[in-house]
Amino acid sequence: MAPRRPILLNAFDMNTVGHISHGLWRHPRDRSIDYKRMPYWLDLARTLERGLFDGLFLADVSGVYDVWGGSPDAALRHAIQVPINDPAVLVSAMASVTRHLGFGITATISAESPHTFARRMSTLDHLSEGRIGWNIVTGFLDSSARALGQSAPLSHDARYDRADEFMDLVYQLWETSWDDDAVVADRASGIYTEPARVRRIRHEGPAYRLDAMHLCEPSPQRTPLLFQAGASPRGTAFAARHAEVVFVPNQGLKATAQVIRKLEAALTAVGRTRDSVRFVTTLQVVTGRTDTEARERFDEYRGYAQPEAGLVQFSSAIGVDLSRFGLDDPVSGGSADAIQSSVSSLAGQGGKPSPTVRQLLAQMPLGGRHTPVVGSPAQVADEIEAWVDEAGVDGFNLVRTVSPEGLEHFVDLVVPELQRRGLHKTAYANGVWREKIFGTGQARLPSTHAGAQWRDLSQQTP
Amino acid sequence: MAPRRPILLNAFDMNTVGHISHGLWRHPRDRSIDYKRMPYWLDLARTLERGLFDGLFLADVSGVYDVWGGSPDAALRHAIQVPINDPAVLVSAMASVTRHLGFGITATISAESPHTFARRMSTLDHLSEGRIGWNIVTGFLDSSARALGQSAPLSHDARYDRADEFMDLVYQLWETSWDDDAVVADRASGIYTEPARVRRIRHEGPAYRLDAMHLCEPSPQRTPLLFQAGASPRGTAFAARHAEVVFVPNQGLKATAQVIRKLEAALTAVGRTRDSVRFVTTLQVVTGRTDTEARERFDEYRGYAQPEAGLVQFSSAIGVDLSRFGLDDPVSGGSADAIQSSVSSLAGQGGKPSPTVRQLLAQMPLGGRHTPVVGSPAQVADEIEAWVDEAGVDGFNLVRTVSPEGLEHFVDLVVPELQRRGLHKTAYANGVWREKIFGTGQARLPSTHAGAQWRDLSQQTP
Repeated sequence: MAPRRPILLNAFDMNTVGHISHGLWRHPRDRSIDYKRMPYWLDLARTLERGLFDGLFLADVSGVYDVWGGSPDAALRHAIQVPINDPAVLVSAMASVTRHLGFGITATISAESPHTFARRMSTLDHLSEGRIGWNIVTGFLDSSARALGQSAPLSHDARYDRADEFMDLVYQLWETSWDDDAVVADRASGIYTEPARVRRIRHEGPAYRLDAMHLCEPSPQRTPLLFQAGASPRGTAFAARHAEVVFVPNQGLKATAQVIRKLEAALTAVGRTRDSVRFVTTLQVVTGRTDTEARERFDEYRGYAQPEAGLVQFSSAIGVDLSRFGLDDPVSGGSADAIQSSVSSLAGQGGKPSPTVRQLLAQMPLGGRHTPVVGSPAQVADEIEAWVDEAGVDGFNLVRTVSPEGLEHFVDLVVPELQRRGLHKTAYANGVWREKIFGTGQARLPSTHAGAQWRDLSQQTP
Repeated sequence: MAPRRPILLNAFDMNTVGHISHGLWRHPRDRSIDYKRMPYWLDLARTLERGLFDGLFLADVSGVYDVWGGSPDAALRHAIQVPINDPAVLVSAMASVTRHLGFGITATISAESPHTFARRMSTLDHLSEGRIGWNIVTGFLDSSARALGQSAPLSHDARYDRADEFMDLVYQLWETSWDDDAVVADRASGIYTEPARVRRIRHEGPAYRLDAMHLCEPSPQRTPLLFQAGASPRGTAFAARHAEVVFVPNQGLKATAQVIRKLEAALTAVGRTRDSVRFVTTLQVVTGRTDTEARERFDEYRGYAQPEAGLVQFSSAIGVDLSRFGLDDPVSGGSADAIQSSVSSLAGQGGKPSPTVRQLLAQMPLGGRHTPVVGSPAQVADEIEAWVDEAGVDGFNLVRTVSPEGLEHFVDLVVPELQRRGLHKTAYANGVWREKIFGTGQARLPSTHAGAQWRDLSQQTP
């Protein structure tokens, strides 16, 4: 048997009290309410690097979940991703206490200006010496649009059209504006930058106008490592064009395998190879030294979880006020987009009926839409192995349980077992984040990537 | 004699190679070209805290200086504030290695959306435990406007009108949206936030629309410590309304004293006391153990400075292409605003003629528009004492020379001398940044401040 390729392993977290597993902040050993303090994040970063995690993936949202009952009250009461702090400004502190850990930052295109955003990401890529990723989100909440002074978010496909335009702009700023040899920093001649090797990006499009050079010299990766989670047909096309790491919703082994096949076809259609992308799904793990210890721990955690809070979040995901549904009413209504991308994973494939509210609640034992893997290190490793072998995933975003002990258990117990099986690396690879994942020499976007087309422009006169 | 109040002492820096003293990056011991690396900033922060500095003040600009010769070529060649990285994402790393140092972050209103910006600052105020300041800039460069997709910057007064509207929005997000007791974080009841103690901010104004709650729970200072540098009549009115620390351009003792008198009158007019504001001017210092050593060091630094690069920056400040002027041509043209706020300091008061280009160059011995104080620690302390006693300034932004040694010399030589004279503290005060400056119990904006008016709204029903 050929040696395995180690999995990609990220912690999945958010600068907030309740990310996915709602209610667990109430657990006596949980430290989630320290999310606003520095030590919480420095400790987390150190733990992840001790476990040779590839990255810390920071989700984000720029609005509140106010579909449930027509108000944000339930979200506030149960700390369902509110209050939520900015993820990007966390990163330099964590980068300063780690050497290899990557940082995946979620940023919503509707909330950003391309020029300002490109500078922020380049700055972080410089400071971290090439360890920055960007999870591209287009923005879907009404409440987020209102926070930004818009009356309503764009329609689903229009959001992706605008996102494509935004991408083409930031690619030009990152890839085209400064040549590799633009900065000479020659003390003798007094020349820091050769002006002929820097160019303005000019653009007038439907959504954006820009006429400016990038303000940063080329960072180690130039374009940060790109994460995306498109699931709809338009989202899949977007992911196939831009993503280097694709999040695939965990819909069970078989359904997830089908999604990956679909994404592979979409990749081929745009001339990218299977190997130029990594597919990552979410996984929630509760482990212990033995199966029994793990199950007891799961039961204990479960006593603090609030599945009804998970329902509040789900209401916003599908745009349906589930507070008005009886426990045995099937979930219906909402936009076709949202139902398609969010409910399908629960409703099952094909002709199966929609789940009832009661069934939804049962699928959220730790307060979020995840069925945790519960077991000894060997059992968890078996499950991970099945995901790799049967579903074809390349890695995992590990969902927070009780924090930080859930992660510490994983690092102390599961990581050694995965290493024994060749499923997890035993040392970090050298280089920037993109090289650690795609190999030495792959610090920049590969030539088959949409962002690389803009490099040809750098041959033009400024 | 009454005991002195210690001065406020900030380092004045920028996330760039050449901030003010252009050309000094060429000095063999200068490390400015490491601006994009983490250790440069961590070391700087540690040095500042060793010297009991109040803050690190980070300037910023979102465009390039392209008035000189009608292109950014000269700015690029001499690294005149380009490339320039984002200042805000530097801060958490430096905050993690310090306990007391404040961080003044420049952010330009024209480049920010109020809701997103308010969250970023609150996050940093949380992470730093209340050590964040904001230097409010309205944005003045054509090149910056083009980078943001605008055809031209607003007129001077219109910028300040928009800025006032922006301020009223962020005050509401910071001061009004969450009550102090909104977060109860009660594990037993499962209630994290009391919804009735959180309210949406609704606004429809000429420049901004917003309908959202703040996404962050109250940070230690709520509103960050506010810095501003308005000099025009409209800018002075803005500063009098908002600033807690006002930057006063260094125009020499007498002229600066006059500016401070004018600002004091403006403060009184809006019902604020002299003691609710600190006036800070810029000071550049070259010191040594003896006067001779200081003068030799100054001569050595001077050999690397590029006053012509300072002229490039000055061209953008006044909007006049000085590359077309002869050495003995007087500087003229440009907008009345810019000339008033920028040239007056050089032209002197009243009926004096404008300086010639040659005179301007002579006023930039270290490559920027500053006449350094050169001398032994006692001589430097004498000068600082004169600024305090005669001009009435409360503190200083210390301009970077050769970095980091210029700062280290100041900390090692001048700080002990200032302490001996009671001009510099011997230990940090407790509390958040606002308390360290204005006294224990002053963590929040005082009731006489414009931002405090919005607190009354928090008595309304949500």
